[in-house]
Amino acid sequence: MQDLSVYLSANARTMKKSVIRELLKLTNQPDIISFAGGLPAPETFPVEELREATDRVFRQYGDKILQYGTTEGDNDLKAQLVAYETAQGLSLGPQNLLITSASQQALDMLPKLFLDPGDYVIAGRPTYVGAIQAIQSYQGRVLGIPFSSANDGFDMVELEKRYARAVGQKKRIKYIYVIPDFQNPSGICWSLEKRRALIEFAYRENLFIVEDAPYREIRFLGEPIDSLYKLEQQMQNRGIVINLKTFSKILAPGTRIGWVIAREDVIQKMVVAKQAMDLCTSVLTQKMIAEFMATGKLKSIIARTCGIYREKRNFMLEKFETYMPKRFDLTWTKPEGGLFLWLSLPHYIDTDKMFYKAIEKKVAYVVGSAFYFDDPETNSMRINFSYSSFEQIEEGVKRLADTIREEIEAHESGPRGQTAPEDI
Amino acid sequence: MQDLSVYLSANARTMKKSVIRELLKLTNQPDIISFAGGLPAPETFPVEELREATDRVFRQYGDKILQYGTTEGDNDLKAQLVAYETAQGLSLGPQNLLITSASQQALDMLPKLFLDPGDYVIAGRPTYVGAIQAIQSYQGRVLGIPFSSANDGFDMVELEKRYARAVGQKKRIKYIYVIPDFQNPSGICWSLEKRRALIEFAYRENLFIVEDAPYREIRFLGEPIDSLYKLEQQMQNRGIVINLKTFSKILAPGTRIGWVIAREDVIQKMVVAKQAMDLCTSVLTQKMIAEFMATGKLKSIIARTCGIYREKRNFMLEKFETYMPKRFDLTWTKPEGGLFLWLSLPHYIDTDKMFYKAIEKKVAYVVGSAFYFDDPETNSMRINFSYSSFEQIEEGVKRLADTIREEIEAHESGPRGQTAPEDI
Repeated sequence: MQDLSVYLSANARTMKKSVIRELLKLTNQPDIISFAGGLPAPETFPVEELREATDRVFRQYGDKILQYGTTEGDNDLKAQLVAYETAQGLSLGPQNLLITSASQQALDMLPKLFLDPGDYVIAGRPTYVGAIQAIQSYQGRVLGIPFSSANDGFDMVELEKRYARAVGQKKRIKYIYVIPDFQNPSGICWSLEKRRALIEFAYRENLFIVEDAPYREIRFLGEPIDSLYKLEQQMQNRGIVINLKTFSKILAPGTRIGWVIAREDVIQKMVVAKQAMDLCTSVLTQKMIAEFMATGKLKSIIARTCGIYREKRNFMLEKFETYMPKRFDLTWTKPEGGLFLWLSLPHYIDTDKMFYKAIEKKVAYVVGSAFYFDDPETNSMRINFSYSSFEQIEEGVKRLADTIREEIEAHESGPRGQTAPEDI
Repeated sequence: MQDLSVYLSANARTMKKSVIRELLKLTNQPDIISFAGGLPAPETFPVEELREATDRVFRQYGDKILQYGTTEGDNDLKAQLVAYETAQGLSLGPQNLLITSASQQALDMLPKLFLDPGDYVIAGRPTYVGAIQAIQSYQGRVLGIPFSSANDGFDMVELEKRYARAVGQKKRIKYIYVIPDFQNPSGICWSLEKRRALIEFAYRENLFIVEDAPYREIRFLGEPIDSLYKLEQQMQNRGIVINLKTFSKILAPGTRIGWVIAREDVIQKMVVAKQAMDLCTSVLTQKMIAEFMATGKLKSIIARTCGIYREKRNFMLEKFETYMPKRFDLTWTKPEGGLFLWLSLPHYIDTDKMFYKAIEKKVAYVVGSAFYFDDPETNSMRINFSYSSFEQIEEGVKRLADTIREEIEAHESGPRGQTAPEDI
């Protein structure tokens, strides 16, 4: 048998299996309460409405929804999206849109279009693991920027410092990747001020910004802050922001439909890339969504979803207060939207190692280290609050709190010999 | 405005717009009869059956078809495909299957997994333009092998010669890409003997073979010949064949569902690649097809499609005999399956230039040059017979024959000064 590894490209050799995916396999036992996945709550999906919309497009369009479509995307869906985004204050036409096979396809396209091996993307420390994987699959690298303690976006001093150092080292930096609204994994929402500052930075350094916005509409507290795309249009309108959206969190991920908003030359280049990637996205699912959007019900579905997540988030935070050990070095974010919160533990706790103890207690999380391109921090975890039921949330937080308490106690009562030098 | 071209990767700079796609834009006028596209006949789609299957899976599975699925693919669909392929004599289990967002996604994955910039793939001269585009999008190159005049596969003498020369030039050759059944664009079907010889060649040279088989089931004349995948299992069973299939030609392309059959380590590596490409394929469309397959109707749908295409192919060949100029240097293939035939014109005719004259006469084809990675032959064209109606076929062939006749006559009556030197 030929040894496959001999044949693999450098791209393939740098591809990493998703840590999350591998860990999720451990969480498939039915008695485990999993805060690990990034799944939307199934009760938010408008199953009956989508069934009806699908039935209508079958009857109305017949064979047309079963034929090849254009690479750019279905015109009806694009018209709906132009109206949808215009209502949110964006200035765009269909030429600024590309329908993708959900956002992950766009995340795969961007390093393909922009990165040569060794090129850098500026991104958060931590950031979405799927973006890191896509960048790695083209041998790209990530220049990680920590977030400010004010919970409002990048630490801009660190951005300037690390950027200057990287430029000094002749690193080629191609674009900035950010999730300004309820970041995955941290739940952080960027302030208006920081958004403006990032755009100014990108203007000055001539960088594109990729604004990944899957959770933007999932705001359940506070007021929306203008997207980078909208802000940039109000500033110099140079077209440097590439905005990624998806129906995965606002309607249903099984549709696998996302959209990119960008200036026309960027869209055209992405269309060429998409031709070789999958020719086109399913016309059937595109028409289904266009038909559903035409009913005008998307807004109320999103509002209902936000309501459900607000309750779950509040309930989870309440249970954190009730059950977690009370310590200054055990903190968690209190997001105003999205699907996740981020739990930071005492620095001597290794959540990679603790994961197996949590599994023994029948609760799962995503290890924080998964969200770092390099030099991971290992004392944190991502907790999903959208998927579990209220009962599961309470019981799961109890189990997680027990796991953490035991881990801290084992450390504090342990002999010095068990402690790593930097902990002494 | 930032100049996009400055930011592009070498990958992006080597990506080529699909010539076909650009030409197709010219053919969108309603009065043009287009033999250019590769579209299946819409009348072959079982619209009502798929509508019913979709409705049933919505009612039966509810929110589950709207949630994220596994990267490997839906278990129900994989079970159906294992049964389907086993019935065709293959030995496989679900671990040998990956569901893809149609075959083009697999064609994008393979160069990603196997090619470093400058690496070569052995492929036909001509071959499927979407495969060439995907290879180019990773800076791969194609070592083109002409087909034998016996219409039964590669010219094996040329394969040995060109391969030896390439190896002598230290070219890194990674895999062989072939479409053994009714090749796109030529319609050629490989003989059993040539299939065996190709596998022997791959064994000897330790190469993987990618067998792209979108048209395999679309055989309307003659007897099926074993697939490379099946043959290799009967020979040394080293697992060197990677088989690509799709529902695009046997059911409906709008579903965007294909499948890869390969040995387990290859599938596992493709799963890692797919994670970063689009996470998973739509569960909704996967379940729809699984449900449709469970009705047992796929076989009769394929048989009906083959019947329709046989009629159209026969009708088109008849009209070719009737209308085309009678000359030894004007020939066309007479395929036993698939969607295309390949028309070769006198060597001095440039089908790229003639295309615009054809458009004036309101008929379209795909220029043969599009199907070459380099050094294209320019006196041929691909003709699709699946999509047009019988009336359109007759009228279109008339127009095409007129265009060709005028082009030949203009050449033959032209002054020597208008003739290219090599034609004298």
